[in-house]
Amino acid sequence: MKRAVVLLSGGLDSTTTLAIAMAEGYDAYALSFDYGQRHQIEIEAARRVANSLGTREHRVAKIDMRILGGSALTDDLDVPKKRSKTEIAHGIPVTYVPARNTIFLSYALALAEAIESIDIFIGANAIDYSGYPDCRPEFIKAFETLANLGTKAGVEGARFHIRAPLIRSSKSEIIGKAIELNVDLSLTHSCYDPSPGGLACGECDSCLLRLKGFREAGIKDPIRYSEK
Amino acid sequence: MKRAVVLLSGGLDSTTTLAIAMAEGYDAYALSFDYGQRHQIEIEAARRVANSLGTREHRVAKIDMRILGGSALTDDLDVPKKRSKTEIAHGIPVTYVPARNTIFLSYALALAEAIESIDIFIGANAIDYSGYPDCRPEFIKAFETLANLGTKAGVEGARFHIRAPLIRSSKSEIIGKAIELNVDLSLTHSCYDPSPGGLACGECDSCLLRLKGFREAGIKDPIRYSEK
Repeated sequence: MKRAVVLLSGGLDSTTTLAIAMAEGYDAYALSFDYGQRHQIEIEAARRVANSLGTREHRVAKIDMRILGGSALTDDLDVPKKRSKTEIAHGIPVTYVPARNTIFLSYALALAEAIESIDIFIGANAIDYSGYPDCRPEFIKAFETLANLGTKAGVEGARFHIRAPLIRSSKSEIIGKAIELNVDLSLTHSCYDPSPGGLACGECDSCLLRLKGFREAGIKDPIRYSEK
Repeated sequence: MKRAVVLLSGGLDSTTTLAIAMAEGYDAYALSFDYGQRHQIEIEAARRVANSLGTREHRVAKIDMRILGGSALTDDLDVPKKRSKTEIAHGIPVTYVPARNTIFLSYALALAEAIESIDIFIGANAIDYSGYPDCRPEFIKAFETLANLGTKAGVEGARFHIRAPLIRSSKSEIIGKAIELNVDLSLTHSCYDPSPGGLACGECDSCLLRLKGFREAGIKDPIRYSEK
């Protein structure tokens, strides 16, 4: 059975990407990252998703991005909230983390080489996250080139493929695909700023995008949001 | 003062690379990696070197490469020793770590972006380590392309440079350069398999390369080796 490494945050996009990889017949090695206290809820979501979909393994790499400072996802900056529930940020968001997907893909590449896989799946999306440079097709392609040059497997003739099957999909299309693949979306987590109990805030960019996607897909979001 | 991130293992090549960056007038942010117990001696060497050369900062990122398994530098495989002191391994060595320089450069890129630097120095060398795919000039170039595509700074017009000033130098040339720059080479550490007290074994590939380099440079290696 062919193996794939699948980057899994436990959000809608990576969860649907994992379901796609498994529907294609891959034996999936899910890979998540623990980059500090704030993301425990996200890691729990990734664990639930990996269990529910039946991955071969789910590995969690601790990474030390706090040495960098300067981003809403790694330190104590406030996550921005919008006045209007339909106003989603444009440009590069304050939640941008320097070189994050480069780091994530580097670990995925190392794991792929270790388990003798040549396929790496990432839920990168260039539509909703148009502000993130490391979600663009040209970035994914450049990483693929790097992967083939910078590994023993690549030098020995293997050809790595960095697969981003949702890169041009809208959020509602992603939700539609997940439903088609029988993914239990109640297990996923998207919020940048959940309550201590894990409820989504419903107000950060990530919640707004998610809610808009469900609205456009004509489906009720099965997760619970904080009462306001 | 222009800033640079310099990957620093505390070995000859990265130490000399750091000295070159500083001689070029960069304010240096040295970056080392802690990937498990086995490398504490290496991190100590990096600390001594950074202090001695007077870097602006020395940051140590803990990274979790043990989730990968399968390499002599990350788990308990025996480091290969040669029968003859002149026989150095060819091909891709057993000490190859999957995608290691890709991971290291990814962190360096994140740090560079965080501190608003566009220059990253790495002590990669394609001569002595001809077996390592991620020490080749084409790999370094591919990472540079990736850096400019995958970062906010790159999208906004910054041009990252991945500098590998020693990539085509022999070990004896590197030692000569270090001496020219007044680097105290007694602070460096190269051995893959040091004694618990930190003495170099004198028999692993890394020690053999180092000793050969000093021999060819006509200089006595100032570090201590285990008595056999």
